[in-house]
Amino acid sequence: MEFSFDVISAEEYTRQRSSYEPLTDALRRLIDVGIHTAVDETTVQEALGHLTAATELLEREQRESTSTLRHADTGRPLAWANPAVGLRNAIAPPMVIEHEADGSCWSEFTLGPAYEGPPGWVHGGICALLLDHILGEVASEGLSLPKFTGTISVKYLRGTHLGPVRAEAFVERSEGIKTYARGYLRDADGVTVEAEGVFIMPAWARDAG
Amino acid sequence: MEFSFDVISAEEYTRQRSSYEPLTDALRRLIDVGIHTAVDETTVQEALGHLTAATELLEREQRESTSTLRHADTGRPLAWANPAVGLRNAIAPPMVIEHEADGSCWSEFTLGPAYEGPPGWVHGGICALLLDHILGEVASEGLSLPKFTGTISVKYLRGTHLGPVRAEAFVERSEGIKTYARGYLRDADGVTVEAEGVFIMPAWARDAG
Repeated sequence: MEFSFDVISAEEYTRQRSSYEPLTDALRRLIDVGIHTAVDETTVQEALGHLTAATELLEREQRESTSTLRHADTGRPLAWANPAVGLRNAIAPPMVIEHEADGSCWSEFTLGPAYEGPPGWVHGGICALLLDHILGEVASEGLSLPKFTGTISVKYLRGTHLGPVRAEAFVERSEGIKTYARGYLRDADGVTVEAEGVFIMPAWARDAG
Repeated sequence: MEFSFDVISAEEYTRQRSSYEPLTDALRRLIDVGIHTAVDETTVQEALGHLTAATELLEREQRESTSTLRHADTGRPLAWANPAVGLRNAIAPPMVIEHEADGSCWSEFTLGPAYEGPPGWVHGGICALLLDHILGEVASEGLSLPKFTGTISVKYLRGTHLGPVRAEAFVERSEGIKTYARGYLRDADGVTVEAEGVFIMPAWARDAG
């Protein structure tokens, strides 16, 4: 397991983002309407025709490299493909994570029908996915250090309403190769889920350092 | 927070599943090709046209009820909209969970590019999402009992390769309103992630009982 990066210029970043982000947003909308559609079989077939046509178009050219793109100016990985924060992954809400000067992170975003567990409530595993990600991001200083989750514990205080939510995380302490992070998920009524995690620098990064 | 159900006949289940499952599979394929497409702006626009047309078709009739569908024969909730196991939610791999006579659960499925964290590896938060779900399912006897996650701890032994994986879970013990469950995620090389969780019957279900 190692990191490699392709650097992308600010101009190319803007071009790709303005071209591909609307595509991902359109897919998010489609996921939502697909879950609860009740149209008849003829209409399903017509929609399927459009989805097949779109797939064939987008398949014509695929990025070959599996390296992560890194922004030339900020030096940060883009993580465009990431299922929690990826602007190009329709599975991601996405969380857009803000980094404060004190090292803490937060993100405000909306969770719609695709993230529903019990009716009206966010699936508990989705809460765990998002908290795992933001804790990892705060522990690795915005994914710029190689750190992997050792253990994460997630405590559900109550259900999280679908709709606008806020995730936040901070580093509690670091001891050698271990970083201890803590975070919260909140809905409009306050904290719903707490998480604490231990993040570890992998052996290859220690050797390299 | 309460459960309500609409019962669906075996015939209607088969009809809806054969009609809507291919739609969800087509969306999963689109999510994957969308993440790494490198086509030019003209082609993106053409694809967007198809996505918009498909959205308009599927929006024409949406299921109004927010109740969970329950199969008339098995009595089990379908959880079609669920982001871990939902056959109609393109975010879900989906896990199709098998229930053994001893109460344990397992599922074998494939995790593709949409679930990638570090290049070539499953995002740790996705592992947490899937384990949270299968532990909840084993603790609630196939979602047939109202049980909510209290706490879940997820321990990452090593990275999980993208590709075929297996999730499994069993109940360790029950104490009053609490059920203790444990589970594992495996790739071709063995166990990669362990999880243990405490699941709690909510107050309204206790009162009802």
